[in-house]
Amino acid sequence: MKKTKSATLERKKEIITALEDFGLNLYEQMEKGVFPSIKMPSRSIENIHYSSDLRQYVLGERAVRRSARNIRHIRPFTQLVWAAYFAHELAKHRKTSTLRDVYYSAQAYNMSFKDQPESNNIITDLETVSGFAREDFNVFPEERSAIFGDLTIEYTVPGYEGKQLNLTSHPDGVMIGPALTSAEFAKTGADKVIAIEKGGLFTRFVEEQVHKKFNALLVLTAGQAPRATRHFIHRLNKELNLPVSIFTDGDPWGMHIAMVIISGSANAAHLRGLATPDAKWSGVWASDIVEYKLPSDPLTDIDVKRLYELQKDPRYEGKLWQKEAKKFLKIRKKAEQEAFSRYGLTYIVDEYLPAKLEAFEKS
Amino acid sequence: MKKTKSATLERKKEIITALEDFGLNLYEQMEKGVFPSIKMPSRSIENIHYSSDLRQYVLGERAVRRSARNIRHIRPFTQLVWAAYFAHELAKHRKTSTLRDVYYSAQAYNMSFKDQPESNNIITDLETVSGFAREDFNVFPEERSAIFGDLTIEYTVPGYEGKQLNLTSHPDGVMIGPALTSAEFAKTGADKVIAIEKGGLFTRFVEEQVHKKFNALLVLTAGQAPRATRHFIHRLNKELNLPVSIFTDGDPWGMHIAMVIISGSANAAHLRGLATPDAKWSGVWASDIVEYKLPSDPLTDIDVKRLYELQKDPRYEGKLWQKEAKKFLKIRKKAEQEAFSRYGLTYIVDEYLPAKLEAFEKS
Repeated sequence: MKKTKSATLERKKEIITALEDFGLNLYEQMEKGVFPSIKMPSRSIENIHYSSDLRQYVLGERAVRRSARNIRHIRPFTQLVWAAYFAHELAKHRKTSTLRDVYYSAQAYNMSFKDQPESNNIITDLETVSGFAREDFNVFPEERSAIFGDLTIEYTVPGYEGKQLNLTSHPDGVMIGPALTSAEFAKTGADKVIAIEKGGLFTRFVEEQVHKKFNALLVLTAGQAPRATRHFIHRLNKELNLPVSIFTDGDPWGMHIAMVIISGSANAAHLRGLATPDAKWSGVWASDIVEYKLPSDPLTDIDVKRLYELQKDPRYEGKLWQKEAKKFLKIRKKAEQEAFSRYGLTYIVDEYLPAKLEAFEKS
Repeated sequence: MKKTKSATLERKKEIITALEDFGLNLYEQMEKGVFPSIKMPSRSIENIHYSSDLRQYVLGERAVRRSARNIRHIRPFTQLVWAAYFAHELAKHRKTSTLRDVYYSAQAYNMSFKDQPESNNIITDLETVSGFAREDFNVFPEERSAIFGDLTIEYTVPGYEGKQLNLTSHPDGVMIGPALTSAEFAKTGADKVIAIEKGGLFTRFVEEQVHKKFNALLVLTAGQAPRATRHFIHRLNKELNLPVSIFTDGDPWGMHIAMVIISGSANAAHLRGLATPDAKWSGVWASDIVEYKLPSDPLTDIDVKRLYELQKDPRYEGKLWQKEAKKFLKIRKKAEQEAFSRYGLTYIVDEYLPAKLEAFEKS
């Protein structure tokens, strides 16, 4: 796994280089005696398309240009240059930060943002210009999710460089925060990844030794997976070549948690490396509710409306998605992952999971 | 720390014994030829009082009795007996569970709960009868928080018995889930606990080595601390004799996050061991907003309403609380922990934290 190791470090260098190139380019324009300008793909809705090749949303051909010549552009132009400077500082000093920190930090530089959305938007501009995610610039979200299983990682964060941790070391799960996200993969005995929506089920899987019985890494998404977790799943799939199956509640919101891991979101159309197109949604399907006679709740009006929306979403073109969305609308029922407890606490591990993983391998 | 160790194991035995005594008592009544009944303190609002001795809410003298003789009692009576049986099974087989699992598991025993609140309420009955928290019966919440610092714990969960982990082993923080909560304390070099509301600040503190510089264990509450985390803080204070200071956002909601760690909630008046009365709220105070000239937002109407409520709450009788609540209302401003980034990312660690910890020691 030598290749993995250098890939992570390589990426870090690329980020610093990209930020420096961004600044250099501005200097070069000024040296030529022209007003500096920045060109980047437009993120307006008309310019967001679903790419069936990449199996994620992408930005189209349209571009916007911000010029220091244009008085209306000077404010966002300056803010963007400051954001690039600040990101470079973070990367150089290897400090992490949050979107909220960025907003307040600006004041230390007399850089004014009128509110949080304005500074968030500038960070998204920086992502668009550079092609890197804000997590690459060490701007991390509050939310944390977790992982458990036989993967040994090697830290790259200051104070921990070269230290290794096996991810079975804490049975409550190892938090996926800045340190884990930036770690390198040293060794794994696992041959698959199982992503799980709910904390209770994650704990059950650890207790029932799913990681050993099924040779799996268990990822807790804790609801909608944070971007750092989606990127981590992407890396597990791509760098370690592990197939990924996703288990969520059996309702449109669970479907969409799986879909965002698989195909990403329109908001992140300007980024790559967050989606895992080969990952599969393994359940709870509408057809599972019928087949396993699960305790269920009736769909609400909001659930139904959401299902109609999903049916029209280009990411939901595939056969399975259309079939299950239709089935939900037909049976008008939804069920949670915990509903399997109706057959005893270990039924989901003893019966349901093996059946689903077998189906996955055949698919 | 031998005492600590046996205390944890002791508690586990006590729980099983308490559940068995509960059952035994019912049998004894039946053998005497009487309808079995269960007596427990009433949890109605009139029976919840604030105890200034215990510095937490407690239940008063009023009791309720459920008798198998009364046809209206048979349903909750049976449900409670089942819940005790199920809790005993969980404890015996050392399996964890969630409130949602309990609800669905009942169906495996043909025990019917009409909805989740009904089964939650029965679990609270079981807490009240036994005096143990549902986490003691291995019924855990979804939410997780985290800890970081020089504390070595020893697991008691199956498969990990006797294994130790030092809580500096993962710089994103070690999740406080069922395994950590039930672990024994083996060794610590820390002399204080710092609890922090926000994930971003927790990460900053780890990066800036607050655990080393201030010899502290860092606990991330991630907003309102889950009960398991409050119990864990209680244990750190009581078993290891560590003073606890709490840092939250500077607004009524932050104040209350600190207060619930310190004095608990009315909902848990039937329980002991969740509150840490000697813990202190160290900031962000309203007076800090003034003193440090922090970037702030105006209080909303809801904030103001909440402050008036808190002023009347018996837990807020203390001088500091009254003074700060008044100050918030006077300045009509609130500030987040991240607002200190206005003076640079490390200002909070370099200047604010030492000043606050010094004040804490003098208090």
